[in-house]
Order: sequence, then C-alpha cells, then structure tokens
Amino acid sequence: MKQEKAVILLSGGLDSATVLAQARADGFEAHALSFQYGQRHDAELRASERVAAALGAASHRLVRLDIGSLGGSALTDASLRVPEEAGEGIPVTYVPARNTVFLSVAMGWAEIMDARAIYIGVNAVDYSGYPDCRPAFIERFQALARVATRQGLEGRAPEIRTPLIDLPKAEIIRRGLALGVDYGLTVSCYQADQEGRACGRCDACRFRRQGFEQAGVEDPTVYQA
Amino acid sequence: MKQEKAVILLSGGLDSATVLAQARADGFEAHALSFQYGQRHDAELRASERVAAALGAASHRLVRLDIGSLGGSALTDASLRVPEEAGEGIPVTYVPARNTVFLSVAMGWAEIMDARAIYIGVNAVDYSGYPDCRPAFIERFQALARVATRQGLEGRAPEIRTPLIDLPKAEIIRRGLALGVDYGLTVSCYQADQEGRACGRCDACRFRRQGFEQAGVEDPTVYQA
Repeated sequence: MKQEKAVILLSGGLDSATVLAQARADGFEAHALSFQYGQRHDAELRASERVAAALGAASHRLVRLDIGSLGGSALTDASLRVPEEAGEGIPVTYVPARNTVFLSVAMGWAEIMDARAIYIGVNAVDYSGYPDCRPAFIERFQALARVATRQGLEGRAPEIRTPLIDLPKAEIIRRGLALGVDYGLTVSCYQADQEGRACGRCDACRFRRQGFEQAGVEDPTVYQA
Repeated sequence: MKQEKAVILLSGGLDSATVLAQARADGFEAHALSFQYGQRHDAELRASERVAAALGAASHRLVRLDIGSLGGSALTDASLRVPEEAGEGIPVTYVPARNTVFLSVAMGWAEIMDARAIYIGVNAVDYSGYPDCRPAFIERFQALARVATRQGLEGRAPEIRTPLIDLPKAEIIRRGLALGVDYGLTVSCYQADQEGRACGRCDACRFRRQGFEQAGVEDPTVYQA
C-alpha cells in the first residue's frame, strides 16, 4: 500500500521532534519543514537537521522568510531582551502571526505533494500563552484550509494534526521517549549559544527542565556554564 | 483626529494599485507590503515601488519569502511554460497558498503597527479561477484573524477589505482612474521583460487589455514588440 505523505513543522525543539516521531508512528512518509525567519536561536536549525535525519524524515526543507525584519518580537529583534522570569500575559518572545505563516507555507507544500496531513507541535498546557497555540486557532485554520487551495476545494485538504495540544510537558517527553526520540539532539532555548547550549533561564528552558523533572527522567540538555 | 493605519498588499499590478488608491481615499495611512517570492516577473516589484511613491504610501516594505523553492507553479518555476491561451480549471500560474501566506504576513505586520485594516486586490470576476481569490476564502481568513493574534483576541483584528472582489476589470479601471491611478506605472504581465514590457498574451495581459477596451479608455500598457 502506498504510504501517505505528511508535512511536519520542525523547529528542532522538543515538541516538534516528538511530533515528527508521532507522524512516523502514525504511518506517514514524513516531510519536515523548517524556517529561517530571523530568529536569534539559529542553533535550532542545526538541531532540526539532526532530528530530521535521526527520526527518518523522507525529506527536509528549509524556507527563508524575512518576517523578522518587520520587528515586534524579542526572538527576532536583538534590541529586545528575552525575559528570564515568568511574567503575565503574552510575552515579548511572541512573534506576530508566526504559526499562521508557518501553517500557510506548509499548506502550500502539502498541496504540491498532495500530502494528507500537517503536523504541528503546538501545546496549550505548559506554554507561553501565544494566541496561535490554542485549539480555537487550529480549528479556524483547518476551516480555512478547506477553501484556500485546489486540494481543499477537491475535498482533500490536509488534516491539521496537533498531537501534543492538550498534553503537559512531562507527558510529551514520556511519549517521545517511547517513540525513540533522543532529546539530546533537540534545542528549545530562545537564546542558545552557537554550540546549541541552553541558557536554562528563558521560558522555553523553564518549561523544558520542569518537564524532565516531572517525567522523572534524566534531562539530556547541555546548559551554558 | 489620528489617522488609522492599513496594510495594503501591493504587487505592482493594476488591481493592487487601485486598492492602494482606495485605501487612501477611505482615509487610511497606507503601509504597502510587497513580496519577493521567487516570481519570474520581478518587473512587478519595481512597479510596486513606483506605485507606492506615486499614490502616497506612508511606508513600503519588501519581504523575501522563498516559497518559490517549493515548486508547483509556472510563476516561480522557469521550467514550466506560462500559458498563452485560455484554459479550463485552475491554471499552472496558480501558486499554492500564496494569498494565505501573504495575508498571514500582513496580519503580523498589522499587529505590530496596530493597523485596523488589510487591503487585498483579489477579484472573482475577470480572474484566473484561483481558489484564494474567492469570497469564501476571505471570510474564513477573517474568522481566523479574530483568534490568531493578540490584536485579534483583544477584539481589534484588522478588517480584511476586498474592494474589487465583485467588480469586472473595466469597473476596476474606471474606479482607479477616478482615484487618480496612473496605470502606466503598473505591470500585470506574468512574463514581463526586464523593462516591464508586457507579453500581451498571458492570462493577466488578456484580462487587463480587455478591461481597458471595455472601459473605453486608452491602454497605457507598453507591450513587447
């Protein structure tokens, strides 16, 4: 039987690596898609290459989008500080419309390949409160996908799959380990250094470290001295 | 009174120039947004600069997106021929998910500036049959915009405005002329040459030429010899 294709949004972090493993476990031929969008943490992109190779992606594309030049986020604007303490509301690391842009490009690639699913590792439990990580956002993007492309009009819109959306971080880690993910290959930190070592202090590091603690497994993250 | 901002998707073609003039006439401070996405017709981008200046845009940004590298369209893939005769169905000049990607980036920029509207020159009358030019697509993108960003969650989602969506090309031209658009500055052709001269044979040229004829006004387009 012909294997169906799926597009996997792969940042090189913990969540997206888990999602790639899940897509493979679900039986898809997995095509990984990463973005260079002016983010500071370029170490993520090198991680995405390691992860795609280790988890058997059939292909891996890197698309450059210079949305960072529009400003508005500490992840793409070196003049803004990445916060190192928990705050209220949507933090300054939020990149406006990022997941909408990423899903849109994934939808275009899905149409070109006739892929039947798009996997995205959004999570609305141990997360930073970004609007485009919530179920309401995913549902409306799915509705859009049904009318936005030729594939959609033909009743073959890709299914937007969010296997992590309601899982606590510890659960995500347990699931990934069961699927064979080596989290030592992944980089989650918003301000990792050139070698991919994590700061241990930003939001992404805090959620990740807490996840390993709660899962009761060893944290393979390499932290800066 | 403070002037509200709007983002205008500006390709440099006839429709988007008209839409920029409309946004100015509607009282907005107009911020033009153009994309370099691997399209063959780069002459459009130079046209977009002329048009933004001539019609008083408050700013003009060019964002590079290498979605053309994913393939799938005659507009970005030099190995596919741009058709020069009317055909059936969605033509090969269709770029998968293009308007979704463009509107997503516009939505991000709108949030950064707190713009209250996004103008896009889609048209579902004298058009090529692209799925992402139809009212159903725009409605679902509007619904998405209400939940996709911080601005949306605060009840301040930009309004997606499509002033040309149900107008025949001749009507668009009449409206633009009344608003002071100089169509001699615009380039619509899918395969214009380096000087911006039109082929006169592709879909875009055919709809445009027919529009000027039906409007009963002189066609300022410079065609290739």
